[in-house]
Amino acid sequence: MATYNAPIDDMMFLFEKLRDNPHYNELEKYKEVNSALAKDILEQAAKINETLILPLAKIGDEKPTTFENGVVITPPGYKEAYKKFIEDGWVSLSCDPQYGGQGMPKTVSSFFDEMLSSASLSFKLYSELSIGAYNCIFHHGEDSLKKKFLPNMVKGTWSGTMCLTEPVCGTDLGLLKTKAIEQSNGTYKLTGQKIFITSGDHDLTENIIHLVLARIPDSPQGTKGISLFLVPKIQVKEDGSLGPRNGVSTGSIETKMGIKGSATCVLNFDGAIGYIIGPKNKGLSSMFTMMNLERIVVGIQGLGLSEIAYQNALNYSKERRQGKSNSSKAKNGADLIIDHADIRRSLLNMKSIIEGERALSFWLAQQTEVSLHHKDNKIKEEALDFVSLMTPIVKSLFTDMGMEITSDAMQIFGGYGYTKDQGIEQLYRDNRITPIYEGTNSIQAIDLVFRKLISKNKDIIGRYIKLVDEEIKKNKNQNEIKPLAEKLDKYLKITISFTDWIKEKVKSSKNDAGAASNDYLKVLGLIALAHSWLKVLNVSYKELDKNKKFFEDKIKTADFFFNRVLPRIDFHYKSAISGSSNIMDFKFN
Amino acid sequence: MATYNAPIDDMMFLFEKLRDNPHYNELEKYKEVNSALAKDILEQAAKINETLILPLAKIGDEKPTTFENGVVITPPGYKEAYKKFIEDGWVSLSCDPQYGGQGMPKTVSSFFDEMLSSASLSFKLYSELSIGAYNCIFHHGEDSLKKKFLPNMVKGTWSGTMCLTEPVCGTDLGLLKTKAIEQSNGTYKLTGQKIFITSGDHDLTENIIHLVLARIPDSPQGTKGISLFLVPKIQVKEDGSLGPRNGVSTGSIETKMGIKGSATCVLNFDGAIGYIIGPKNKGLSSMFTMMNLERIVVGIQGLGLSEIAYQNALNYSKERRQGKSNSSKAKNGADLIIDHADIRRSLLNMKSIIEGERALSFWLAQQTEVSLHHKDNKIKEEALDFVSLMTPIVKSLFTDMGMEITSDAMQIFGGYGYTKDQGIEQLYRDNRITPIYEGTNSIQAIDLVFRKLISKNKDIIGRYIKLVDEEIKKNKNQNEIKPLAEKLDKYLKITISFTDWIKEKVKSSKNDAGAASNDYLKVLGLIALAHSWLKVLNVSYKELDKNKKFFEDKIKTADFFFNRVLPRIDFHYKSAISGSSNIMDFKFN
Repeated sequence: MATYNAPIDDMMFLFEKLRDNPHYNELEKYKEVNSALAKDILEQAAKINETLILPLAKIGDEKPTTFENGVVITPPGYKEAYKKFIEDGWVSLSCDPQYGGQGMPKTVSSFFDEMLSSASLSFKLYSELSIGAYNCIFHHGEDSLKKKFLPNMVKGTWSGTMCLTEPVCGTDLGLLKTKAIEQSNGTYKLTGQKIFITSGDHDLTENIIHLVLARIPDSPQGTKGISLFLVPKIQVKEDGSLGPRNGVSTGSIETKMGIKGSATCVLNFDGAIGYIIGPKNKGLSSMFTMMNLERIVVGIQGLGLSEIAYQNALNYSKERRQGKSNSSKAKNGADLIIDHADIRRSLLNMKSIIEGERALSFWLAQQTEVSLHHKDNKIKEEALDFVSLMTPIVKSLFTDMGMEITSDAMQIFGGYGYTKDQGIEQLYRDNRITPIYEGTNSIQAIDLVFRKLISKNKDIIGRYIKLVDEEIKKNKNQNEIKPLAEKLDKYLKITISFTDWIKEKVKSSKNDAGAASNDYLKVLGLIALAHSWLKVLNVSYKELDKNKKFFEDKIKTADFFFNRVLPRIDFHYKSAISGSSNIMDFKFN
Repeated sequence: MATYNAPIDDMMFLFEKLRDNPHYNELEKYKEVNSALAKDILEQAAKINETLILPLAKIGDEKPTTFENGVVITPPGYKEAYKKFIEDGWVSLSCDPQYGGQGMPKTVSSFFDEMLSSASLSFKLYSELSIGAYNCIFHHGEDSLKKKFLPNMVKGTWSGTMCLTEPVCGTDLGLLKTKAIEQSNGTYKLTGQKIFITSGDHDLTENIIHLVLARIPDSPQGTKGISLFLVPKIQVKEDGSLGPRNGVSTGSIETKMGIKGSATCVLNFDGAIGYIIGPKNKGLSSMFTMMNLERIVVGIQGLGLSEIAYQNALNYSKERRQGKSNSSKAKNGADLIIDHADIRRSLLNMKSIIEGERALSFWLAQQTEVSLHHKDNKIKEEALDFVSLMTPIVKSLFTDMGMEITSDAMQIFGGYGYTKDQGIEQLYRDNRITPIYEGTNSIQAIDLVFRKLISKNKDIIGRYIKLVDEEIKKNKNQNEIKPLAEKLDKYLKITISFTDWIKEKVKSSKNDAGAASNDYLKVLGLIALAHSWLKVLNVSYKELDKNKKFFEDKIKTADFFFNRVLPRIDFHYKSAISGSSNIMDFKFN
């Protein structure tokens, strides 16, 4: 089984030294969330993830969720663990105190998301979508619905889902067919089939609150005629107690490559009673509030799986002896594989990406909180613009890097990595869903290029580039950092050229832009990681004497990132700007 | 289930138009292997792979090989299929007619290897190692052993294995502990444990011929004290009939991420009778004859799995409708996903790599035959040098690209690709062993950099670069090809700089060379693919009028490769030459 130690030191370093967004620090509601509190929470979080949750990963893989006689049964031990998990209040961590939540900011809860993803992604998914559904109801639901449904969802005795996909529509929600017919009492009756519904049914909670996209008859075609409904699995009476079963049933569950402990369901709605959330025909925009936050969490899943993969590869490389290293002093026998240059290179590649991602994610957590809670609307909106820009990047980059890292970790284990015993190949299989769900990474790239760079005539990408540029300028004067700051400067200039090219192509040749979108996303992602590393470097040199080992590690890892990872930009840029004429003309047999 | 159509057109194109190695064409023994014969064989091969073998892939994945009461049982249908497979003579395709083989060159048999890898890698492995063992006995065994063992191995009623790995040694064979004690009659008794033995035991053949590396007491330490032995599972009497069971038993089989139809065994040797092959203490060099050829076949496995993944992704992209393409004419509903620029880019990426690999592999097949059979020793040796240089490249590049391509293919299927129904995720899992076995890709990179560039004072890499340079010069004069030839010229110059850097570092800083080895392998691999594409381009323009659709496809696919894939060299080069001091200094926690 894979082992795991939550990287609290790195998390606390970020929390203490890089909580540097002045607008975040202005938020009244988080004034009391100080280092001591954060550390206490992270230590408790580490404990439950390292001991209670981690073993569920292997159990879920070996004894997947089953579906028998219309009932979904989670793997052995999930029920008991879930009970403890909600008793300890982990579902409610980021929820509003008004409904029983603990009101923690994302600067804390996103670390918990990472830990839980490391420990068991399958188990995590049972509460993750609940929080998504909670957020959506919280922001768009009527008060009566909030009062009726949120407290139990926050407590975790009820869970939630997001029901978007149908057999003919995943990416393209405009095609969806589920119907919602209004009843005389203002409720709706929903009929249709939803597929790939994560945690769509299970035996962990008393009730499941589905958020369902559906079409009201006579609504406009396409995405402009979609509304959002709250549809409980079991009806809830006026007094809040459970009533009869609603018209929702589970058709089947998917047999998947990984996350086998998670139930991925086909749900059939047959005149199920539902309550509309938000205005008619505006369902997609309400759903996207929650979808966007969810996409960032999917990115964090990739980060969490990368972290545990790295830890296990590192441990193994300190135990396994094979071959003589170049500087071997051993006369007989073999050296530890961690003494081999290529293994070290691979480990540092993982580490430099993981720690860069964690820093970027922490920066984004601050921006997200500002975008949700700042008093000044202008500041709020500016933060939201950055969050929107970074959402597809974090979702795609972290999950794609997660594939690279879980694969490289398996490679370090050699033949043992390919067997089930070590738990490494499972990380790879579990992570393989992350570039697919919540909008494939291809969709994220298109979203970035066509919708996020410029929005409502605001040059968001320009503002982001300026932010990076300012950080470079600040660091160019520091002798130790100068060489890396200049390297980033060079790559930022390439990124500016690439951005100008993309902006022009979005107008003049959409296919050129589309064929370049994946490369562009990667480039901007690498810049964002380098930006994060530059800030980490700055702090590391300042604080070097206070914790020499820790900050020397950071400095060397940053150096690796700038020299060995950042140059990927060269390839992506050159490849992308070669255009699309031959691609579009090609006659596939 | 995944579908498959053997790419006979592309194979026959190579066989007819790119059998351009003059020394290959001088080989007397293959004079009669003409296009008509090759086509006939490929058509028969396509038939058996598309119909009989393909369904075994899914069966093997769903009902893996089992191990009960000491006996290994292959998945349902494997036995019947294997019977037909050997009756039709497919095991004997490349074997010597002297022992009942069909004597086909690798220019034909490697196409069969590709098809069989596409259809079912698990099933392939039962005969693949037999051919490896056959080659080893054929080249190094005494005549009496050959007569006794080869005819049944060629027939396929007996199979073979390669027993190298032990619990403490995979990569580093110097550590191996299995002992061989000489008996008064000249045979040996072997005792020890071997692990990860592919097809180490199964129920498809009457007997299994193990080739086992072991140490004779008082032999030198390390790799210079290893000898090679033939150890049959069941003893063979003087008259060739089967005798009692030998002292070899199966301890267990591995539970793996993929290739679940293949038995990966722990074998225990307890005083098993063995016959020495080749001179004492020279076992490793005999084994490597077969190992090197086997490594090329592993590369071809990656190619085969890439091909079937591409075909299925292409088919799906022509059926699935999602979203509007940039040039959509449809007013309602969605376009086929193949109309989207990013999907087309992904498909062409796969196609351009696959067809480049097939052309490179065909070039290498000719070199291999020259290296084995040419009358002129100098020509033979020169060909062998190229084969040695290309072996780690083909093994690593094709298998790493196989991961990229099977993953990208899954991505095109979206959520459906992650479920078991489509058979796509299995291709990814099955392929994941190929970068690991027969020497991990990290080992291949080290082998390339430290042993293959310069060998016995011969500048092999210099000769290879010259070969590519000559092809560029030849094509620079042709107007249509000129831009791509110049692009390759530019990247060849980078490769020359990189090579000079590597050669210098191999002497002055082995860690710099080691940390750069993986990038160097990738660069040389991309150059080799581009070299192959340049030759294909040359033919395509010459023959354009004869088969317009086919050659236009080739020209556009080549264009994609040069513009979108070849620039990866920029990144690998820059990353690699940044050195290793921080990597080697790093204090991993």
